[in-house]
Amino acid sequence: MSMSEFDLIKRFFTRATPGALLGVGDDAALLQVSDGNVLAVSCDMLVSGTHFFADADPYLLGHKTLAVNLSDMAAMGATPRWATLAIALPPKDGGGADEVWLDKFSAGFFALAQQHGVELIGGDTTRGPLNLCVTIIGEVPAEQALRRSGAQIGDEIWVSGSLGDAALALAHRQGLTVLSGIELAACEKALHQPQPRIALGMALRGIASSAIDISDGLLADLGHILESSNVGAQLDLLSLPVSPGVRRHFSQPLGKQCALSGGDDYELCFTAPHQRHAELLSIAAKLGLPLTPIGEIVARRECIVHDASGKPIKLETSGYDHFR
Amino acid sequence: MSMSEFDLIKRFFTRATPGALLGVGDDAALLQVSDGNVLAVSCDMLVSGTHFFADADPYLLGHKTLAVNLSDMAAMGATPRWATLAIALPPKDGGGADEVWLDKFSAGFFALAQQHGVELIGGDTTRGPLNLCVTIIGEVPAEQALRRSGAQIGDEIWVSGSLGDAALALAHRQGLTVLSGIELAACEKALHQPQPRIALGMALRGIASSAIDISDGLLADLGHILESSNVGAQLDLLSLPVSPGVRRHFSQPLGKQCALSGGDDYELCFTAPHQRHAELLSIAAKLGLPLTPIGEIVARRECIVHDASGKPIKLETSGYDHFR
Repeated sequence: MSMSEFDLIKRFFTRATPGALLGVGDDAALLQVSDGNVLAVSCDMLVSGTHFFADADPYLLGHKTLAVNLSDMAAMGATPRWATLAIALPPKDGGGADEVWLDKFSAGFFALAQQHGVELIGGDTTRGPLNLCVTIIGEVPAEQALRRSGAQIGDEIWVSGSLGDAALALAHRQGLTVLSGIELAACEKALHQPQPRIALGMALRGIASSAIDISDGLLADLGHILESSNVGAQLDLLSLPVSPGVRRHFSQPLGKQCALSGGDDYELCFTAPHQRHAELLSIAAKLGLPLTPIGEIVARRECIVHDASGKPIKLETSGYDHFR
Repeated sequence: MSMSEFDLIKRFFTRATPGALLGVGDDAALLQVSDGNVLAVSCDMLVSGTHFFADADPYLLGHKTLAVNLSDMAAMGATPRWATLAIALPPKDGGGADEVWLDKFSAGFFALAQQHGVELIGGDTTRGPLNLCVTIIGEVPAEQALRRSGAQIGDEIWVSGSLGDAALALAHRQGLTVLSGIELAACEKALHQPQPRIALGMALRGIASSAIDISDGLLADLGHILESSNVGAQLDLLSLPVSPGVRRHFSQPLGKQCALSGGDDYELCFTAPHQRHAELLSIAAKLGLPLTPIGEIVARRECIVHDASGKPIKLETSGYDHFR
């Protein structure tokens, strides 16, 4: 006999939710927002064949499903608190839900949730082509949320971590290049187990003038900051923080493309006044996370990337778009 | 040239959100919860082929996608405020998103949203098999939320509206029965344009001892109240409020099945002390919505339905389950 939907939720997706007035199991969860805070709410849907391969490791997929949502909280400087998870799951051969898959998926999801103090307070499970949808709810003091619209002319532009690893791992998998074992290991971790920069986002409250997470590629996402803030940017290609694997491909279009336009990085791109430079380096040291200045906000409404010789490079693509 | 994901969100899913500090267009929306209220949060996913036919009218589908979520707010006695909407959409022939479909879907969604003062504050659009996922966020004074766990022995059991119409419309479509034109029109409206009982839910604050919405069938959903409240129930089959179409099928198993176990009704089932009886009838009159007492909460942990002669009837199925 196969499990009922009710049993399935109870077995795989019901954990203690001491931070909620009422968790899973009623028509809605009840949540009390902390004094002085507003809610930050975001939603991401991951679809088999579009965002991940159908044979993706379910543990890593559980991690990533939550990670991409946590990354939006990081980009707002919010403290993530609660999440809902809706899953459409194909029945396995024979008819029931795939309990082995669910066991691993939920383990990956909850491991990351626990690490960040996030409680799963609701959701839905249904039959259908594999689809994972999370809505994440966080808290942030109203005036300290990191918006896209605050970049000022003269601000430095920073990114966390390194750029393009996830895209390079994908290129390897697609046969567009061949990575060494060491390179591949580093890049695959970025693709399959991105680390949402929650601690960084919270540390940037009151320091960064704007922030976004790099999920569609640096140029596309920085582009959103530029548009929202009505400013432009000048970037130095050689200042971009990249892994040795991406660096090795810089002589080919692939390397630059990964660093500038590769999606799925989930690092933060943010702007801050020059006088915050030293403070940001000390945050980097404290968090053990590289923070690298890569350029400057300018008045002219365009984004120019300079190569080693100072010449603007020709940009071929500006990020991933599901409907282009 | 087809629309980008960004343009698509801008064109179809961005409306004014005066009730949000920050709406669509950043990494997360920012929301201020009203003083003295807690959040009610719920999430439902609708999948093509599982919850609706692939050729479903997109306007009605937009309505229903939000309606099933609003129904959860009604069942909590919450005032719905905000929603996120994630859509996976197959590309139409030629590659781009189906703009005609999106235009109608968003019109149906926003028509209902506006009716209930709900603002769309975030979401996601991506390519994939058609899938619609809404997270709804409402507000309710903490002590007045209608939980499933409060039913008391001796309470009357009530339902709103009529039962089984949506299931009977489905049975007609599946060729299991033939409805007259008038019967079909009434039943199809229940199936395709369910009206979430928001005003009723709010009116039941402080009156109902428990509540749930009937999305999986009366017996299954009342069963959740009984389990959460650790009580049982006795129901009268003939007291169930049903439309003439369902009534006409009461001599066959189909009629009883629709009324007792038919899903997709989105009426409320709730319990209240006997002394609230008159008050509830006046709420019914005020809202123009039938409220019908259908039985009583009892101590013995089972649910018995009596037929016209007072004999317990044999129950064949207890509701819809996606994984049974």
